Amino acid sequence: MRRELALHTDKYQINMMYAHWANGTHKRKAVFEAYFRKLPFGNGFAVFAGLERIVGYIGGLRFTEEDIRYLSEQEENYAPAFLEELLQFHFQGTIHAMKEGALVFSDEPLLRVEGTIMEAQLVETAILNFMNYQTLIATKASRVKQVAPDDILLEFGTRRAQEADAAVWGARAAYVGGFDATSNMLAGKLFGIPTKGTHAHSWVQSFGSEQEAFDAYARVMPDGVTLLVDTFDTLRSGVPNAIHTAKMLEAQGKRMNAIRLDSGDLAYLSREARRMLDEAGLSYVRIVASNDLDENTIMNLKSQGAAIDTWGVGTQLITASDQPSLGGVYKLVEIESASGEMVPTIKISSNPEKVSTPGKKEVYRIIGKKGKAVADYISFPEEEAPRSGARLKLFNPLHPYMQKHVQHYTALPMLEPIYVNGFQVYKLPDLAEIRRYHKEQLDLFWPEYLRKLNPEVYRINLSEKVWEQKQKLIAEHIQPDLE
Amino acid sequence: MRRELALHTDKYQINMMYAHWANGTHKRKAVFEAYFRKLPFGNGFAVFAGLERIVGYIGGLRFTEEDIRYLSEQEENYAPAFLEELLQFHFQGTIHAMKEGALVFSDEPLLRVEGTIMEAQLVETAILNFMNYQTLIATKASRVKQVAPDDILLEFGTRRAQEADAAVWGARAAYVGGFDATSNMLAGKLFGIPTKGTHAHSWVQSFGSEQEAFDAYARVMPDGVTLLVDTFDTLRSGVPNAIHTAKMLEAQGKRMNAIRLDSGDLAYLSREARRMLDEAGLSYVRIVASNDLDENTIMNLKSQGAAIDTWGVGTQLITASDQPSLGGVYKLVEIESASGEMVPTIKISSNPEKVSTPGKKEVYRIIGKKGKAVADYISFPEEEAPRSGARLKLFNPLHPYMQKHVQHYTALPMLEPIYVNGFQVYKLPDLAEIRRYHKEQLDLFWPEYLRKLNPEVYRINLSEKVWEQKQKLIAEHIQPDLE
Repeated sequence: MRRELALHTDKYQINMMYAHWANGTHKRKAVFEAYFRKLPFGNGFAVFAGLERIVGYIGGLRFTEEDIRYLSEQEENYAPAFLEELLQFHFQGTIHAMKEGALVFSDEPLLRVEGTIMEAQLVETAILNFMNYQTLIATKASRVKQVAPDDILLEFGTRRAQEADAAVWGARAAYVGGFDATSNMLAGKLFGIPTKGTHAHSWVQSFGSEQEAFDAYARVMPDGVTLLVDTFDTLRSGVPNAIHTAKMLEAQGKRMNAIRLDSGDLAYLSREARRMLDEAGLSYVRIVASNDLDENTIMNLKSQGAAIDTWGVGTQLITASDQPSLGGVYKLVEIESASGEMVPTIKISSNPEKVSTPGKKEVYRIIGKKGKAVADYISFPEEEAPRSGARLKLFNPLHPYMQKHVQHYTALPMLEPIYVNGFQVYKLPDLAEIRRYHKEQLDLFWPEYLRKLNPEVYRINLSEKVWEQKQKLIAEHIQPDLE
Repeated sequence: MRRELALHTDKYQINMMYAHWANGTHKRKAVFEAYFRKLPFGNGFAVFAGLERIVGYIGGLRFTEEDIRYLSEQEENYAPAFLEELLQFHFQGTIHAMKEGALVFSDEPLLRVEGTIMEAQLVETAILNFMNYQTLIATKASRVKQVAPDDILLEFGTRRAQEADAAVWGARAAYVGGFDATSNMLAGKLFGIPTKGTHAHSWVQSFGSEQEAFDAYARVMPDGVTLLVDTFDTLRSGVPNAIHTAKMLEAQGKRMNAIRLDSGDLAYLSREARRMLDEAGLSYVRIVASNDLDENTIMNLKSQGAAIDTWGVGTQLITASDQPSLGGVYKLVEIESASGEMVPTIKISSNPEKVSTPGKKEVYRIIGKKGKAVADYISFPEEEAPRSGARLKLFNPLHPYMQKHVQHYTALPMLEPIYVNGFQVYKLPDLAEIRRYHKEQLDLFWPEYLRKLNPEVYRINLSEKVWEQKQKLIAEHIQPDLE
């Protein structure tokens, strides 16, 4: 899957790289932080994903001769010496990031890039592209998992995904967020995700009758046969024919796996199908359902007593249909001055939530005495790390009067070193490890933060130093209004 | 960009291929048609796109040794002789499709695959994945173009796109639908789309002052300088500083290109900025706006007299945010019987709109005497093609009493041969040609069909033969209800 992605960036990055180069400022050290300002879907948390993709991108980041030729033809401004420098380019910076599967929140750094302004600028677009999409899908998947924690969840979205990468990386993100398998074979091959699939309506249509089609399928796929029962009429044709096939398999000492419902009233049809299967002595045959499902339809179907064991979730998951983008941003928080010192920087906005938080920062997850997360605490690296016994003041950065103190706690550092001076220092965990970590993360939170609707808001707090520096920089940049 | 995509398919395709192979029916001829049932966004038409991607996929469609190894490890069922057959596989079928840029409608074949059931089944998933996404984005772009036909439209969505392929192919689809440029450099390189971009807030933040940052940028990028003016305060800092820089450029005999607004009340800010620029004698400096724009916000801003010349459209376009998937399906319409004749097939649904239309079909666009499209007419290849002078009956297939006749018209065949027996016979047009074709297509329609809100419904009609065969097959498969 590795492709040449150096040009998978916005033109303004290349323009700024060139402008810094021409201005002689391209080697200045810079620190950028990636974060989002608002949780998606009204959820109480997001599930961080995309790091494996980002590591692959950073590791393979080179401009080809062809890329350079394209750039030289594109823009007469670009000096040949600049293009020559691009040809030699490889990432030499330092990256810290959350681990995939981590529960993450708004307004905290999820990924931090330190390097020359030139290299840190180049990687912005692709990092956001990968992080935004995969975190979005892992979060959506986790919402589905919340409403069907004991059922089997299948990712079925490839045909409606937004192109091939979304299908493949989206299948991986869904698996990180708690899904059990995907229909996409390429995702299965690339990442070792279990794959599932049965047959389409066309299988039934290509035979003289539905019964003939079911029997033929069961004959050649004797293990794990799942039959799609809605090509003509679910209850009058599909289920009776499937029962007949299941009996044929039983006569051979074999067991049919499941039937699949793909249209109609899934609550009613599944209950009726369950009854018919049970009456035929086929209580072991499971029921798979699909058809534009998401966490809301699944929760409603379950509340109506739908007899569904396995859910095939397609379009709504793979496109995150109700909110198809995560608004992750990448902001400059420190820059080297002409005299060589690192200076915190700010981006002002008339919307207070959009003002960036200056300075390079660490994130700690504060775990209270009961073993549950109390808040995330953001401080400067030069501050002493929070440690149990040392009283920690937690206050709301927009409303500082809302505060509490904790004294006995564990402070888990959340940002892992991934690249240091261009060298990958992080061993990418396998998906089983990521899924395990995700489950541990979930266990650290009270259910109030995890519920799908109107979750409790988890505290993301700044240290007093971080907060004070932000106020100082705001004051420096805002001229009081005088009319 | 060519990658190994043979496994970019759903597992059920491989399972059906295997089941047909084991059943001895894998060489049977089959005809599938791809279409969608509902236009996206409440639009009156869709803009077909994705064909170049599909042609690249079909041409490179091979299973690698590694793919085969994966399949053999995945599923013990797959017989070695079947896997050996896959290793030899290449597409030998025939494909017809609409041309990219064509205006297309619901319930008409957009792409038709004829081949063995085995090969036609394999390609379903990827074809739908490519066609669904690119058609969706081209259509969304065309809606934006409708509300700002004379402005410059820039695609800026990469960081919020659903992974890399969506960014790159989405940029191309937006260009097909009427956009003028993209920020994505890889899309620029791969497809020759013009690229645009200026600088980010981080450029300004990395200097001691906004003025210093603007001047430095203008010094090194003397041609086509666009300055982002909202890092600190648009009207009190950004615009005055940009005017200062423009004057500096004028003193050198150069002209600044534009300023860019990226936050706040774009209607008010753009009018004020226009006034300030004009008063400074800089009426040639244009105004670019961005910030979560789509066709509705742009139309509203224009109705409020916003002084914006160029629109940067990101998230809402590249994800088709208000409807992030097109529900294109791929249905078996004919299959070879055991005795070798082609038999029409049907998929029944309790929802009348979802019943498939049996038989391999052609699509003609009927152009009336005034040079405008009257209806699309769908008939069997063995029927005589509609020709002027021969009275043509057009009736609503769901409500046949709604009918009209046309006598003098031109009938344009819409489905082009792309592959014939595995050979590509279609020369992919370049993007300039596709954009020209798209504009010609738009000119064939009365504006009532093209408007953004509540468009007139364009007629998609079946020949009497097609309609009668559909009724016959429905009757054969439906057992009358008796309770």
